[in-house]
Amino acid sequence: MPHLDGAIVIGQSGGATAVINQTLVGAVREAKRCAGFSAVLGMRNGIEGVLNEDFIDLGRQDEKILDGLLFTPSAALGSCRYRLNENDAGKAIEIFKRHGIRYMLLIGGNDSARTSLEVEEAAKRVGYELKVVAAPKTIDNDLPEMDHTPGYGSVARFVAVTTREAGFCTEAMKKADPVKIVEVMGRNSGWIAAASALGKKTEKDAPHLIYFPERPFDSGKFIEDVKQVYGKIGWCVIVISETIRDKKGRRIAEKSGNVLEDAFGHKYVGCAAEKLCELVEKKLKVRARYDKPGTIQRMSMAYVSETDQKEAYMAGKAAANGLADGKSGIMVTLVRGSDAPYSCGTAEAPLARIASTEKYLPDDFINGDGNFITESFVDYALPLIGPRLPNFTRLGT
Amino acid sequence: MPHLDGAIVIGQSGGATAVINQTLVGAVREAKRCAGFSAVLGMRNGIEGVLNEDFIDLGRQDEKILDGLLFTPSAALGSCRYRLNENDAGKAIEIFKRHGIRYMLLIGGNDSARTSLEVEEAAKRVGYELKVVAAPKTIDNDLPEMDHTPGYGSVARFVAVTTREAGFCTEAMKKADPVKIVEVMGRNSGWIAAASALGKKTEKDAPHLIYFPERPFDSGKFIEDVKQVYGKIGWCVIVISETIRDKKGRRIAEKSGNVLEDAFGHKYVGCAAEKLCELVEKKLKVRARYDKPGTIQRMSMAYVSETDQKEAYMAGKAAANGLADGKSGIMVTLVRGSDAPYSCGTAEAPLARIASTEKYLPDDFINGDGNFITESFVDYALPLIGPRLPNFTRLGT
Repeated sequence: MPHLDGAIVIGQSGGATAVINQTLVGAVREAKRCAGFSAVLGMRNGIEGVLNEDFIDLGRQDEKILDGLLFTPSAALGSCRYRLNENDAGKAIEIFKRHGIRYMLLIGGNDSARTSLEVEEAAKRVGYELKVVAAPKTIDNDLPEMDHTPGYGSVARFVAVTTREAGFCTEAMKKADPVKIVEVMGRNSGWIAAASALGKKTEKDAPHLIYFPERPFDSGKFIEDVKQVYGKIGWCVIVISETIRDKKGRRIAEKSGNVLEDAFGHKYVGCAAEKLCELVEKKLKVRARYDKPGTIQRMSMAYVSETDQKEAYMAGKAAANGLADGKSGIMVTLVRGSDAPYSCGTAEAPLARIASTEKYLPDDFINGDGNFITESFVDYALPLIGPRLPNFTRLGT
Repeated sequence: MPHLDGAIVIGQSGGATAVINQTLVGAVREAKRCAGFSAVLGMRNGIEGVLNEDFIDLGRQDEKILDGLLFTPSAALGSCRYRLNENDAGKAIEIFKRHGIRYMLLIGGNDSARTSLEVEEAAKRVGYELKVVAAPKTIDNDLPEMDHTPGYGSVARFVAVTTREAGFCTEAMKKADPVKIVEVMGRNSGWIAAASALGKKTEKDAPHLIYFPERPFDSGKFIEDVKQVYGKIGWCVIVISETIRDKKGRRIAEKSGNVLEDAFGHKYVGCAAEKLCELVEKKLKVRARYDKPGTIQRMSMAYVSETDQKEAYMAGKAAANGLADGKSGIMVTLVRGSDAPYSCGTAEAPLARIASTEKYLPDDFINGDGNFITESFVDYALPLIGPRLPNFTRLGT
């Protein structure tokens, strides 16, 4: 039962995923079940919806709509990448007062944890009783204090299966286009790039090389690596994180001038895969092409992980429950059971330990050459991408 | 029954697809059923496998492998983009003689039709009795003489569904990244780009604008179009064919120097979507991002069209049957039934009418502004992408 009478407001923030609506519906249904909340509101486009007083009554949504949202990608409430300025948090509290909002549930990643924390602190400063709980969400899997994040399992499945599929193409087309580079997302960590190897079963299967932001990218070494694979099997599929950087910390396709930054200071630069294709064509004199699935990798429902869907729902439910229990200043976390087979439950961690912090691939998940993953990573990540991976076949000899 | 005793050799050529192995298995199983062929061989990597005498015994493949290939993307025999030189066709005939090959079945598109024709003509010149039949294959849907091509329905489904999915992302992220450009394949025609609209149900759904190689691309008009959509709904998703060209026939991201051509003279240039994102950011002062699904769009089994799978199988079967009936110098074609509901059968057309010819989007499939498709296109293409398109949901107001 809640400590206070008041409405709960739920928001979605940061990059959208294929399962963030599972978290939303989990939170809404649980909030409706916990009779203590006077209303279940949604903020349109994250914290910007609060500042604009743009709320929606989630408690009155038709159940059929909620059912449909479970299988609709992206953030149904709209999202944002807005960085609070010094007056915003105080303004949000004023608006919460006006609307009788005593509970805030923000579904998001590192930046959203920071926003949640700032709103909670602003409430404390003015003595307004507000409970703030965050539910985790990011395809990047870079949140500390938890085993993995909702959203990761689905993008990991997309990247694992489509890389293997695209690899069959390069294998068949090796006489014309023997080198393929797939550029995937992942902010500053290599979790998504690493997942590309989860569908690999034989030496021939893609990917053959993976490059992570956790290791400085050396163009000379890269060309040697590609040359070796190409020399051995006749083609080569490479997966790179979009944010791989050289020894000086420069992005591969960094440009001078007109580079736009988002509100959190994340820069947007050119396409690393295209630059590296040009390098391969110049140095190895063979054709190189690239795929950049972009937002498709995080929106595709055809490659969604059922495991990820369930856990995303569970996280939203746990966050609403936490608020109903009077908790505040925390993010729900996912905890893996210690015994086989794989199981997953929820726990919690202080927002301050998550806000604006990133978790990188540990050393024992990257091989010694810095160009592939280890079996330890497979053991960690394979359960997350869900059951029933497709089987593919080659002709016998 | 065949007119001659001899082996049949089957090959796959040109860009691989998600269903070209359906055509292969259809051809192999039918060839085995028609007892007249002394052996059922496969050429490794298209006509290059003939020239290298690199054959595989397809008649002895385990049935389980054939079953598995039906759901394995890409070309199991390997493919090529090799252009026959003046001596090659004669050399191929010599090799056919040595291996007792009297039937050639090549699965491919325009270029493959040309190769088939050249081999058939070379056989005639030296008086070697050889029957040549081609089975159609191309995601580009640009073969004349037929309603559509095997391979198109599946890439069309991928593009239709993922564009709508990616559109939900842009809608949610409109405060940060309001403009998205998706660059799709299609050689010199807009069939694939056009298919991106097949999932669209409301004005908000992506795509909002489509640009085709059939219309000269005008940057100024493009910016005006984007500005109008963005002004009206707050975000904009644009789909472009990778080969859109300006009034002077120049590709959007054409570069001077190091542009590699394939053996058929098709040029490879930079990424048009990236250039156009830069243009949007410069002119409209909003962030623009792009997706370039590349080979993933033509390899994805999760988005395969069941209709396309069946028709691809049927085309391979019909080609083997045609050879068994003594036909030569033709490509199997797909013919749509004249009455509703949609149905499809096979017929044939002379290779000479298909070789190196391309079919473009007809005028009545493109709107007057040259930036979207018409209902006539939807009527034409929707049956090709298969049943059970996903339903997505938005929150009520």
